[in-house]
Amino acid sequence: MKLWQKDKVALESVERFTVGKDREMDAYLAPFDVLGSMAHITMLQSIGLLEAEELKILKQELRNIYQEILAGDFKLEDGVEDIHSQVELLLTRRLGEVGKKIHSGRSRNDQVLVDLKLFLRHELQEIVTEVLALFHLLQQQSEAYKNQLMPGYTHLQIAMPSSFGLWFGAYAESLVDDLTMLQGAYKVVNKNPLGSAAGYGSSFPLDRELTTSLLGFEALNYNVVYAQMGRGKTEKLVAFALSGIAATIAKMAMDMTLFMNQNFGFVSFPDELTTGSSIMPHKKNPDVWELIRSHGNKLQALPNEIAMMITNLPSGYHRDLQLLKENLFPAFQTLKDCISMSRLMLENIRIKDNILDDEKYQYLFSVEVVNNLVLQGVPFREAYKQIGMDIENGTFSPAKEVAHTHAGSIGNLCTAQIAAQMEVVVKGFPFEAVDKAIERLLNS
Amino acid sequence: MKLWQKDKVALESVERFTVGKDREMDAYLAPFDVLGSMAHITMLQSIGLLEAEELKILKQELRNIYQEILAGDFKLEDGVEDIHSQVELLLTRRLGEVGKKIHSGRSRNDQVLVDLKLFLRHELQEIVTEVLALFHLLQQQSEAYKNQLMPGYTHLQIAMPSSFGLWFGAYAESLVDDLTMLQGAYKVVNKNPLGSAAGYGSSFPLDRELTTSLLGFEALNYNVVYAQMGRGKTEKLVAFALSGIAATIAKMAMDMTLFMNQNFGFVSFPDELTTGSSIMPHKKNPDVWELIRSHGNKLQALPNEIAMMITNLPSGYHRDLQLLKENLFPAFQTLKDCISMSRLMLENIRIKDNILDDEKYQYLFSVEVVNNLVLQGVPFREAYKQIGMDIENGTFSPAKEVAHTHAGSIGNLCTAQIAAQMEVVVKGFPFEAVDKAIERLLNS
Amino acid sequence: MKLWQKDKVALESVERFTVGKDREMDAYLAPFDVLGSMAHITMLQSIGLLEAEELKILKQELRNIYQEILAGDFKLEDGVEDIHSQVELLLTRRLGEVGKKIHSGRSRNDQVLVDLKLFLRHELQEIVTEVLALFHLLQQQSEAYKNQLMPGYTHLQIAMPSSFGLWFGAYAESLVDDLTMLQGAYKVVNKNPLGSAAGYGSSFPLDRELTTSLLGFEALNYNVVYAQMGRGKTEKLVAFALSGIAATIAKMAMDMTLFMNQNFGFVSFPDELTTGSSIMPHKKNPDVWELIRSHGNKLQALPNEIAMMITNLPSGYHRDLQLLKENLFPAFQTLKDCISMSRLMLENIRIKDNILDDEKYQYLFSVEVVNNLVLQGVPFREAYKQIGMDIENGTFSPAKEVAHTHAGSIGNLCTAQIAAQMEVVVKGFPFEAVDKAIERLLNS
Amino acid sequence: MKLWQKDKVALESVERFTVGKDREMDAYLAPFDVLGSMAHITMLQSIGLLEAEELKILKQELRNIYQEILAGDFKLEDGVEDIHSQVELLLTRRLGEVGKKIHSGRSRNDQVLVDLKLFLRHELQEIVTEVLALFHLLQQQSEAYKNQLMPGYTHLQIAMPSSFGLWFGAYAESLVDDLTMLQGAYKVVNKNPLGSAAGYGSSFPLDRELTTSLLGFEALNYNVVYAQMGRGKTEKLVAFALSGIAATIAKMAMDMTLFMNQNFGFVSFPDELTTGSSIMPHKKNPDVWELIRSHGNKLQALPNEIAMMITNLPSGYHRDLQLLKENLFPAFQTLKDCISMSRLMLENIRIKDNILDDEKYQYLFSVEVVNNLVLQGVPFREAYKQIGMDIENGTFSPAKEVAHTHAGSIGNLCTAQIAAQMEVVVKGFPFEAVDKAIERLLNS
Repeated sequence: MKLWQKDKVALESVERFTVGKDREMDAYLAPFDVLGSMAHITMLQSIGLLEAEELKILKQELRNIYQEILAGDFKLEDGVEDIHSQVELLLTRRLGEVGKKIHSGRSRNDQVLVDLKLFLRHELQEIVTEVLALFHLLQQQSEAYKNQLMPGYTHLQIAMPSSFGLWFGAYAESLVDDLTMLQGAYKVVNKNPLGSAAGYGSSFPLDRELTTSLLGFEALNYNVVYAQMGRGKTEKLVAFALSGIAATIAKMAMDMTLFMNQNFGFVSFPDELTTGSSIMPHKKNPDVWELIRSHGNKLQALPNEIAMMITNLPSGYHRDLQLLKENLFPAFQTLKDCISMSRLMLENIRIKDNILDDEKYQYLFSVEVVNNLVLQGVPFREAYKQIGMDIENGTFSPAKEVAHTHAGSIGNLCTAQIAAQMEVVVKGFPFEAVDKAIERLLNS
Repeated sequence: MKLWQKDKVALESVERFTVGKDREMDAYLAPFDVLGSMAHITMLQSIGLLEAEELKILKQELRNIYQEILAGDFKLEDGVEDIHSQVELLLTRRLGEVGKKIHSGRSRNDQVLVDLKLFLRHELQEIVTEVLALFHLLQQQSEAYKNQLMPGYTHLQIAMPSSFGLWFGAYAESLVDDLTMLQGAYKVVNKNPLGSAAGYGSSFPLDRELTTSLLGFEALNYNVVYAQMGRGKTEKLVAFALSGIAATIAKMAMDMTLFMNQNFGFVSFPDELTTGSSIMPHKKNPDVWELIRSHGNKLQALPNEIAMMITNLPSGYHRDLQLLKENLFPAFQTLKDCISMSRLMLENIRIKDNILDDEKYQYLFSVEVVNNLVLQGVPFREAYKQIGMDIENGTFSPAKEVAHTHAGSIGNLCTAQIAAQMEVVVKGFPFEAVDKAIERLLNS
Repeated sequence: MKLWQKDKVALESVERFTVGKDREMDAYLAPFDVLGSMAHITMLQSIGLLEAEELKILKQELRNIYQEILAGDFKLEDGVEDIHSQVELLLTRRLGEVGKKIHSGRSRNDQVLVDLKLFLRHELQEIVTEVLALFHLLQQQSEAYKNQLMPGYTHLQIAMPSSFGLWFGAYAESLVDDLTMLQGAYKVVNKNPLGSAAGYGSSFPLDRELTTSLLGFEALNYNVVYAQMGRGKTEKLVAFALSGIAATIAKMAMDMTLFMNQNFGFVSFPDELTTGSSIMPHKKNPDVWELIRSHGNKLQALPNEIAMMITNLPSGYHRDLQLLKENLFPAFQTLKDCISMSRLMLENIRIKDNILDDEKYQYLFSVEVVNNLVLQGVPFREAYKQIGMDIENGTFSPAKEVAHTHAGSIGNLCTAQIAAQMEVVVKGFPFEAVDKAIERLLNS
Repeated sequence: MKLWQKDKVALESVERFTVGKDREMDAYLAPFDVLGSMAHITMLQSIGLLEAEELKILKQELRNIYQEILAGDFKLEDGVEDIHSQVELLLTRRLGEVGKKIHSGRSRNDQVLVDLKLFLRHELQEIVTEVLALFHLLQQQSEAYKNQLMPGYTHLQIAMPSSFGLWFGAYAESLVDDLTMLQGAYKVVNKNPLGSAAGYGSSFPLDRELTTSLLGFEALNYNVVYAQMGRGKTEKLVAFALSGIAATIAKMAMDMTLFMNQNFGFVSFPDELTTGSSIMPHKKNPDVWELIRSHGNKLQALPNEIAMMITNLPSGYHRDLQLLKENLFPAFQTLKDCISMSRLMLENIRIKDNILDDEKYQYLFSVEVVNNLVLQGVPFREAYKQIGMDIENGTFSPAKEVAHTHAGSIGNLCTAQIAAQMEVVVKGFPFEAVDKAIERLLNS
């Protein structure tokens, strides 16, 4: 029986339609719901709405449920509407009437809000860990292949000398900026909405600073109307943060499929990491990269989907928000998979030697030659014209040497400086404080 | 004559198609192009590619051009391809051959990149200023109307008591989070791409740290391939940052059109700020709010547009990027207009007194009454059931009092704490350092 | 073991990543894969690549498998890569070597293409059926409530008299245009890609006209490169066709939530079709409408998602396309659910009587009065001014009568004409021919 | 002075903000506004709201204004709010009081609606003309280059033999499907909204069938509420129709940039149609194709932008709709430019001879060889295995012959059949009837 049902019977199809995939989505929130409840009841006791003894046994049982969830032993029973009801049901079944007291002073709205924030915060932290692993690999490969030259393209036309050192390093640095944006989203996430009740606050003298501190949030969503307004907005910010990383690895994947193409032929991968064809026996298809690209692009459409679903909704809760979970919740695992598959691929990449020996790349060096003339005192426009003529007349024959020395160039990758930038970003995340707060809450 | 044209004649239609709106878009970049050149040549002189005397006269003339731009006296002449060529043309016309030297050691690619970064950085700063003005007004109105109760809705159903204090305050707090995200974008913008040349660096011994410091950038885009990869990505981040603010004011506008609707009738505006109808003489239409909403929603589509245009482009410059300017560049002014129109409206808002006296709002207080019973010791579920029965039986007659005291609730808006959150965010922007660097550069 | 695997072992994580949700998605395609195979082998026999006897036993067994699928007795076995392999496996297990012959002259690419087209065609037909049921209900309600006046709003301001007859009728007519667009998509779907092999045709003398006719397609995708190019494009068209219907019912849902709002109070629904609140005992929440709206808006984002995933992919198959299934395939059921829930709601709608008696609606009639003066010979601008003055002076007191007679107005809903428009559209779908072709194929 | 202004003065900034770019956008609508007025007053006279003599002089003057618009001699004067007011002003200035009578029985809402429909209908017709020119060129080139083989790629890996005949032909056939969808949009456009007034009809006995016939519309938007609801919806459908064509040519452009890339080197273009580089003298950049691609992708984002702006707006007019014009109206010219630039490029394309002679393409023929074995009676899986072994052992040495004969394959392009499909689609547009109706109206 659902709590709001009183004496009416809802039609079964309505039930099925309104529940939708929500029970499945609730599984993502389960552990965080328990954490939220532990903080909430600790606060309730502090303001006299719960006895110390009640708090003690409730907390003990919530800890048990938390362990059951982690162990995979927790399930929404048939007929139980949502995760919140299931937890309350277990408490009541095991502890009697006191179990119902955890619901005082909050509504499902702020309960979902805080679950969501805790879930998103947790997932963002996991994403950061994955991104860092990829970052370090990219930096490592950048150093390993810093002398491996390749053509650089502009307009997809052969342009100037580049290197795999530059190529790997570029994607590493891209992740620094991606995490910078993600940190913005994390900061918005890391504020406590609990206590906003149904979006208009409560007549109970809730101590919202206490739950904020217990749950390791950096700050409150103070205004209760805003706390509710954060639903949808927060999901969109997080989706955009994910889409930044997704865009980076999707672009990398695009490059890879091009470089694996036989007309380029710059890189290859072991057979175990490519796919054959049922009808073309010689092919080594880059399916892994193609799927990384496709997942990445799908993820890029997610912020827009969320925006479409919340645009022009007036302030206050709407049931529409429920459906935001469906594509966002699984997106974290998808992105983590894409990152770890990228790592598997890049760890096993094989780069062709002496790519630039091929005759078609000789014009790559035209700018080098122009610049060398300039360094010898020839005005740029004149040097430019002269080399252009040599090329047109077929007399261009450059020394294939690259002597770039400035910061960020082939000869000076600034790997350490980029690592330092990343370190600054990572230090901006209060992961340690958050982890400690949660540990403290679980052990209190 | 275009620089790359050598002896060929491009067909006029190709010319028109490839130029497109770019000359118009270049006007946005003009002052920043001059600043970029001043930093570049200062650096060129420091590494021996320019004489001290040459630097002096070039800088003097660039300062003149900068003033001409600010005064509105700068124009792209017919037949001049772009802003960079126009500046070089003016220099050459006024100073002779030395004018051509400003192009050494860079390509149009990194020149556009740095122009774009300086432009975006400048515009983001202006947006922050506008947002702050709106924020302060919202906070002020929140305090001014803190005792003005209104119904709070969930599911668009009358739910619980709210107040205009809460309503204004919610949108103020929303802007704090919006600027938090915008700060992420600002940090990505505030890195120097100059020196990446066509995206693969240069054989000149460029001192990129020097131009970084001269232009007030916080850091370098080190890797030259990444510097180029930042094009498109940066625009998308900035567009998303704008879209966050846009979403906030669009939602506010949606609320306003609803509250102005005669069935709600909560607020009204002076005739000068509303619009009549040619065929319905009694109407006061909220055109200003509707257009704010529409602009806001259009802006929300912009990050997606940019993503669509850059997705699946391999690394390296593509001409596709040119078109990113067309909807992004004017978006800043549009957003600033929307913000200032929002302020004009909110300054002149008239809020109806005693809204909750209307009988249809009495059920708003049901939760208050349930909670009061709970505070008196009645278990929640029982209190809930009892009040539900009273309502069904028509015997529900609440005292219309709201005594919310917790943080962020009707009786405790936490205006100062929200202001403090905003202050922290604003202090995270290095505007002062940037302004000083630019001033120093202009006066050097 | 996968067909392409030869003697190599793919890493398990690569396997899991590349398979993704594809086995789950394949379930949607199963019956259509069998149909495609039946047509394909019939054609193979006609060109001498299969014996008549072989064809006979293969067709018999494919029919069996088709029945097993319909009965829900068909499953992808562990380790079987996809639906196509599973069907081939069953055939080989039951019939021996001849089972392998169904794969001659096609590749998985055109097999998936044809499965997809048959699936989409089938689903679009089901959608049309659902839409028609909603259309007829809306028309019926339009007639039933044609005398029930309501205010019409512009700018969300009370504007002019409207009626529930108009309101229902508007959404009915909207569906006519939605099906017009859907018919465009259907026509694109209803062309046969089979025989394009991996996207470059085959050296077998395939008779593509024969499979076209056997499968009831209206025409061929002639060019084999285009047949492959249709993947992604077709999904996008279909998604857009769905999004049109979704937009119509989402807008209807928005209206409903507004009209159910107590400030409007135009309509209500039985308790069984609304939802209560755990903390606000008096509420009747429009959750069904909110979820219809939210699903509808999510669906509106789908064409964009697909575009994002296929944009800038060069011609030829890419594995990226696999992921297009994940949000599109379940979308049909979602949309059908939304349509049938809309019907359940609209069948049970209760419309308030005499809505316009409320004093706040008297200005609705200002235009009527102006027009009546005009019909009596007063110039419009003068009449307009005079009524404006009456309203300002508080002397406006209209007769609350509406006598609209022109086509499509309150007094002349043109229900029959709109039904006739719909009939024309519906007749444009070759459903009967398609159904017959499939029946014939199954019984051949 | 604006019509609705009565005695109030709107603040100038409000004025500027609400007008926005609308005056500029109105220029697109001017000729269609005159046509709409001509039909409207003809109808007014038929129902007795205008004298025959009045009709005569009004029509004469409207014809004059129409000619002035076509001649470029028509301008919105300062202080005139919109196109409709300007036309009315000119009439009154030239004809006196009778000029005001054209406004009877309609409101600006249905006036804009009908202008918009006429404009969109006209532009769609122009697009069809452009598309057909491209279609014929593609078919022509398909035939011209039908023997020019090229590699076909799947997963961007060399896969099987293809040809430029196939490549051109594929894009031709793509346009058939694009116009099929566009025809759906055209049908929705080609219905008459005039007479819906402000969205709720009129008490005048308007003869809407008459204006429908006079303006050459195929049918009415009967329901007046739906007529208004069509705003935004129609724009979205049209934008989607454009985006289909845009996607086709953007994909073609992507192929072109790849094929022009020196690693592929399949095609080239005269210098006049490519662009050089200021710093890389040897390059021939595909700027035209890159901009076609970029415009195409931008256009693909347009339906989503429109959806974002209209989603969740309740029924009835909202000022939000005004801004839909800004990106849609110029999109027609952009798309027409992209199509004509595509033609210019494709007319001048140079295709490399004997592409497949390069050794790296020999594996292209593996499937051919497998199939030939099969045709000789070897079971497919066995043939497949054998050739796979030959390739692994380096003993694969195919005859480079392609003998594809089935419909739509290299050797049988079905150019005529595809042309026939296009003809059927084109005949589905009632262009001739529309043109005649407009001509008749202008000469009446």
